[in-house]
Amino acid sequence: MNHSPSHPLEPFKRDIEVIEATLKEHASCLHPLIEEIIQYIILSGGKRIRPVLAVASARLFNDNLSSQIYMLSIVPEYLHAASLLHDDVVDKGELRRGEIPAYKIWGNKKTILSGDYLYATAIKIASDFNNPLIDRTIAMTVQLMAEGEVMQMMRAYDEGYSKEEYYSIIKRKTGALIACSCMIGALFGGADEEMAGNLYEFGLLIGNAFQIVDDLLDYTSDTSTLGKEIGADLKEGKITLPIIYALQSTENEGVKRLRQILKKKDTKEGITSEDIEWVRGFLSATQAIEMAFKEATLLIDKALNSLNAVPRNEMSSRLQRIAKYIIERRY
Amino acid sequence: MNHSPSHPLEPFKRDIEVIEATLKEHASCLHPLIEEIIQYIILSGGKRIRPVLAVASARLFNDNLSSQIYMLSIVPEYLHAASLLHDDVVDKGELRRGEIPAYKIWGNKKTILSGDYLYATAIKIASDFNNPLIDRTIAMTVQLMAEGEVMQMMRAYDEGYSKEEYYSIIKRKTGALIACSCMIGALFGGADEEMAGNLYEFGLLIGNAFQIVDDLLDYTSDTSTLGKEIGADLKEGKITLPIIYALQSTENEGVKRLRQILKKKDTKEGITSEDIEWVRGFLSATQAIEMAFKEATLLIDKALNSLNAVPRNEMSSRLQRIAKYIIERRY
Repeated sequence: MNHSPSHPLEPFKRDIEVIEATLKEHASCLHPLIEEIIQYIILSGGKRIRPVLAVASARLFNDNLSSQIYMLSIVPEYLHAASLLHDDVVDKGELRRGEIPAYKIWGNKKTILSGDYLYATAIKIASDFNNPLIDRTIAMTVQLMAEGEVMQMMRAYDEGYSKEEYYSIIKRKTGALIACSCMIGALFGGADEEMAGNLYEFGLLIGNAFQIVDDLLDYTSDTSTLGKEIGADLKEGKITLPIIYALQSTENEGVKRLRQILKKKDTKEGITSEDIEWVRGFLSATQAIEMAFKEATLLIDKALNSLNAVPRNEMSSRLQRIAKYIIERRY
Repeated sequence: MNHSPSHPLEPFKRDIEVIEATLKEHASCLHPLIEEIIQYIILSGGKRIRPVLAVASARLFNDNLSSQIYMLSIVPEYLHAASLLHDDVVDKGELRRGEIPAYKIWGNKKTILSGDYLYATAIKIASDFNNPLIDRTIAMTVQLMAEGEVMQMMRAYDEGYSKEEYYSIIKRKTGALIACSCMIGALFGGADEEMAGNLYEFGLLIGNAFQIVDDLLDYTSDTSTLGKEIGADLKEGKITLPIIYALQSTENEGVKRLRQILKKKDTKEGITSEDIEWVRGFLSATQAIEMAFKEATLLIDKALNSLNAVPRNEMSSRLQRIAKYIIERRY
């Protein structure tokens, strides 16, 4: 009999319950406005992948953790929520994963200040652990995230975008926070800086792979599964890995048309649904989708390798499963 | 002969030069957009009171400081600039101290993200000092600042505002960062947590006094000296200490009119220039201005007392002079 494999977060069910309770309890101590926004943006859903990675990375080194790990594990969740809030104001999108974005409910003012408050709260919680390495990891991560936002904003609508630049942005926008989740967990679990660095590397690689897959879904999924408009990235002029590959194709006429479409972002007409349909076809015809997916697979292989140096136990197997799942998901 | 006393920052002339050079050099390593915004918002002027307080508080405990103190001293300057950038977007004012606010030059998007980047950079610089007490002080400060913004936003246009609430907001909006500047300096200089706490207390008191005086100037100064419209706080519905005192006056008719004016903020007409003129007169007639000023003076006395427990040397005298100057300034 062929059992479909269970979700890789399934073994963390009990941990996720404690993470949820910790988030809920902590939010109730904050300003009522912030609690309301946290309710909406954090407590309404989410797989808690970052907190789980922090807990798993800690338990990898110590299977008798103090319950304080759950408090530390919500730090990256708060940082993520804070970045979503500011993204909402900056991007002015219509939907965020199928939900109304925060700025539409609370307005710019409250959304910006709540983002600041969540950033600050995350940093404050982390600082209570009295571990300068944790503080430095968090500080570096927040800086990378902010850099990523700035780089992405300054580079939008520009087709002369290299793979290096793409990586440099996704590392900051996604990889760094997942890497941080693993690293602070490892440090909490007692890993030294070098050993925790392996977990940072692991997180960075799976985070980057996650983003590549996420960017691919913009072209391969459909609106109802994805919870946002298909081709939304393209409409915003966001250049992702499949586009970069397609621009390197030898089909000169197609590349020319793709460049023209990308430039339309700044025109009054904008990028139309027909353009998006054509781009989807071109990405498929030039194997750009396939190549980008292969790249994500390679990153996951590397991530699995980076676990070679860490203790082998139940937790390392679970981390492996999470890594593999990233290239299996379809939404 | 009666010499007018020199400015209390005069003895720090050489330090201020190094602070300026440090800011300039550090900014040049950041993203070009951020450098441009820092040029505008930090390098274009400013008295560097926060960095100077950090340097002075450090030297109070160690007169042979490493030059790293200058790097640490720019942390509160960056935090301050970050908060100004987000304030600009949130307040949507016409002028910020006589200058065009950042959001009008760069737009919301760049201004918000640059603010995030500056917060992150400040936290990152601080974390490089590998001192968990410094990290905790910074984290607590950023949290207090964010809380202050949220509290102020949620409380605007409400005349049922107590003195306790006013203090609770100015502590977060102004006092905390000045307190932080003094405390991290003291920690860098080798003070233990308790001793550094005296400097925190000193900074908090002079910071609060500074804000009271600043709020008073909204009613007592004139537009050209102040670099912003007189009565601007009132127009925004900001309840400051003199208004709180005036609302407690026994002149019932006047209090009634004041309440009516405050409520006009939410009407289409808004608070007019005549309203502002009348409020200025009422604040003066009820001694509200005088009482608020007296309160600032009491805070400065307390601040001077909090220096009793710290070493007495050239630096403690200079800190005393800075404290006294706060209630002498008229713009």
